[in-house]
Amino acid sequence: MNGAESLVETLVRAGVEVCFMNPGTSEIHFVETLDRVRGMRGVPVLFEGVASGAADGYARMAEKPACALFHLGPGCANALANLHNACRARVPLVNIVGDHATYHRRYDPPLNADIEMLTRQYSKWLRTSPSSAAVGRDAAEAVASARTAPAGIATLILPSDTAWGEDGSPGEVGPIPPPPRADTRAIEQAVAMLRNGRPTAIILGPPLTQSETTLKVAGRIAAATGAKLLAPFSVTRARRGAGLPAVERVPYIVDQALPMLARFSQFVLLGAAVPAAFFAWRGKPSVLVPEGAAIHILASADQDMDGALSDLETALGAGRFEPILQPAAQPVRPSGLITIEGLAATIAAMLPQEAIVVDESITSGRGFMAATKGCPPHDWLVNTGGSIGIGMPLSIGAAVACPDRAVVCLQADGSGMYTLQALWTAARENLAITILIFANRAYQILKSELAALGGNPGPRALDMLEIGRPDLDWCALARAMGVPARRVETLEALARAMQDGVASHAPNLIEVPL
Amino acid sequence: MNGAESLVETLVRAGVEVCFMNPGTSEIHFVETLDRVRGMRGVPVLFEGVASGAADGYARMAEKPACALFHLGPGCANALANLHNACRARVPLVNIVGDHATYHRRYDPPLNADIEMLTRQYSKWLRTSPSSAAVGRDAAEAVASARTAPAGIATLILPSDTAWGEDGSPGEVGPIPPPPRADTRAIEQAVAMLRNGRPTAIILGPPLTQSETTLKVAGRIAAATGAKLLAPFSVTRARRGAGLPAVERVPYIVDQALPMLARFSQFVLLGAAVPAAFFAWRGKPSVLVPEGAAIHILASADQDMDGALSDLETALGAGRFEPILQPAAQPVRPSGLITIEGLAATIAAMLPQEAIVVDESITSGRGFMAATKGCPPHDWLVNTGGSIGIGMPLSIGAAVACPDRAVVCLQADGSGMYTLQALWTAARENLAITILIFANRAYQILKSELAALGGNPGPRALDMLEIGRPDLDWCALARAMGVPARRVETLEALARAMQDGVASHAPNLIEVPL
Repeated sequence: MNGAESLVETLVRAGVEVCFMNPGTSEIHFVETLDRVRGMRGVPVLFEGVASGAADGYARMAEKPACALFHLGPGCANALANLHNACRARVPLVNIVGDHATYHRRYDPPLNADIEMLTRQYSKWLRTSPSSAAVGRDAAEAVASARTAPAGIATLILPSDTAWGEDGSPGEVGPIPPPPRADTRAIEQAVAMLRNGRPTAIILGPPLTQSETTLKVAGRIAAATGAKLLAPFSVTRARRGAGLPAVERVPYIVDQALPMLARFSQFVLLGAAVPAAFFAWRGKPSVLVPEGAAIHILASADQDMDGALSDLETALGAGRFEPILQPAAQPVRPSGLITIEGLAATIAAMLPQEAIVVDESITSGRGFMAATKGCPPHDWLVNTGGSIGIGMPLSIGAAVACPDRAVVCLQADGSGMYTLQALWTAARENLAITILIFANRAYQILKSELAALGGNPGPRALDMLEIGRPDLDWCALARAMGVPARRVETLEALARAMQDGVASHAPNLIEVPL
Repeated sequence: MNGAESLVETLVRAGVEVCFMNPGTSEIHFVETLDRVRGMRGVPVLFEGVASGAADGYARMAEKPACALFHLGPGCANALANLHNACRARVPLVNIVGDHATYHRRYDPPLNADIEMLTRQYSKWLRTSPSSAAVGRDAAEAVASARTAPAGIATLILPSDTAWGEDGSPGEVGPIPPPPRADTRAIEQAVAMLRNGRPTAIILGPPLTQSETTLKVAGRIAAATGAKLLAPFSVTRARRGAGLPAVERVPYIVDQALPMLARFSQFVLLGAAVPAAFFAWRGKPSVLVPEGAAIHILASADQDMDGALSDLETALGAGRFEPILQPAAQPVRPSGLITIEGLAATIAAMLPQEAIVVDESITSGRGFMAATKGCPPHDWLVNTGGSIGIGMPLSIGAAVACPDRAVVCLQADGSGMYTLQALWTAARENLAITILIFANRAYQILKSELAALGGNPGPRALDMLEIGRPDLDWCALARAMGVPARRVETLEALARAMQDGVASHAPNLIEVPL
């Protein structure tokens, strides 16, 4: 078999079954293989950032890697912004980049680039296959590395002659090694902290907030000790809703995060960093926890964090406690003109059972988490790395991973324009995604920043932050790419559109002017 | 003044007057400055790849740098694909990237990235300013470096505290040092080659093909010696048309390039590499010149290439020769259904005087150069690095640089989708760009590659290369972003649409189904 066949065969055997791709000439052998090696679903995209974001969304929901296929350095460069987010999300992802043939690079043809330099900072594993004979083994190592805790991005660069060379053979992916257990003393110290009577927060990093079992262990510890459960603002996937222990995200706004965290003098961290501000704002602190607070790392991301929580539960005798569970509470549908508050209440009222919510709502969505906390159980995915344009791509990946669930994508207009090509893939694959576009026609968050500088912002500065003039017609954009769309002017119309959209089990877009 | 003011003041004094931008929180001080330091035009974009491509197009036509402003590592990552093209085009460009405050990076907030690692391979000059006091000096050095031959990308990374710090002062850009003259022996050797009677090609790298003066010197040398003038396939800007010496591009297709170059046994290079294949194709050579051909570097890109051509002209006594000039020949408007040949003839028939043609037509446009060679004088810009999605961004930059000329953008549909957000900026700035979208609804070039592999391509493979199903409605996409559009079904309709579009002096799009 050739190298490309050995690649696909290895990936399929290792359980990698979906490839989000935008191939080029140097990847044509990989594409050609799709008809001969069965088991790999190719999902085409019109821009690489859609593929990397979709592979992230797939991994968040499937809890295993997809692969993404890119065309040389520039193709991979287009994927980097969402690879940045995926890296921060700590999801497994196999990133395959075609390159010039090994013997051709010396001529420095136009598309030549140092792909390793482009991808190194986002890759926990990185290799350029030297020959077709090595591709199967390298692909197996890539999958194993991506899946070993902490999960991450494995980048495999395949010169085109490694794809067409005929001496390929599939690699074998062995069992993924379990992460090492946390130190016994780390457990003991956590027990001591949680019994010393001082107010304590436990911060749960990814992937802890995605499992009901884990959340209930954490919830029993919280019930036994009075500790509060927190998650970073940039949470990869939060399982939440009625009947589940509540975990609160640290707010983005420094002036909200500071008082929230000021209530605690101790922080127990599981795979999470000490909360810091998203940006440096002049005159505001970088670190959000109170000065002198005790910080204790119970387990780091490369350790057995679930095991550490279980050990802690046992050591505290917390198993006999009942976790405090979020009571069911879904608002009644509000009516009238669209307001930020009404928007949150409507979304909460209409959120279907087992929804996968993808939230890139930026300023429009600051009330969404609070409004939906008592909704039927659902998963909430957010932008983990601050690189905007992840919402619709993430939704595509989530919908491919969970075809029986409804994806609700809460999308700011400015961020949505970054990767609007995602709409075409949603239509092509007929994915059950209901996209709400919050059309405030500005980079609203930046207008707030500009105002915060004081003085009167000038017209030329403000002009750079307006994305109206001309207004974007999101309904027309969606329809032009095959996605039905409607614009709503009232909360009642929004509720109806959400209901219809979810019921359609197909992609649909709702433009919500603000 | 603060660092941001010192930055803008320095840039404006150095003749950098346009900034294509997509700013974020860390760049807000730069934006705020636009109202206080006069002379900088901010052009907003909805995706960073539009800004980098536009800065490239501006530089190609204005022959001086614009700046581009990006938001941290991920914002810059989105710009990289077109920075790759700009790097290959050897255009001057000042790439400004905001970063976290110097004291904030240690907390590794979500948007943290190694921006230097992302940009190093594309930057001839790269620096992170350490303080607001240094910003003015660093900006001056960036402009000087970008403009020093060979022109290139200067990347200046500005931590946000260097923007708001109050001890800024403008830097001074001194005269740009002239490039060193080529070695006298290199001139002598070229003279000897051009007089030895063997068939010789002179290959002109950027920026030689953009100046009529330079072309005429080269044309006189060709007339005196019988040498043929060539340019690389990936030409930055070709000045061409009736009354100008003709320079032929080396074809993309290896089977066309080989016989063309087989006619020569000697190659004289000015800032150009030995022609090599765009990709490695199995069984085809990487190097396109005949084995054993004599290669002579008359001048490299960092030397005075114009001076070397002049010296060569003098040494050959070629000044008294008349260059062979392209005769005027514009086809009459063809009629009937749209064919590839009819398309080329129609575009040639309708090309306005002094058009700036931006050609990212890929497979649809292989006959365009031949059809337009006798058109009224115009400039022809192509994708220089193979990273697709440059056409509309390049057109925006060219139109900003030359508001009195008509830009005609020949755009393949697949490539166009990469950076379709450019349409909004074209509308916002009311730029005189007529965009022809060649809608073959496939990555046609890849379908040819797949077919060339032999056997019968399978349906799953072919499916990855079709970008119909659903078809993209380009007219609706354009209108949704404020650009008037029409679809044409005949060559007559295309001719009328081009005439109307150019006459409108405003952005307009013509969808050409193929």
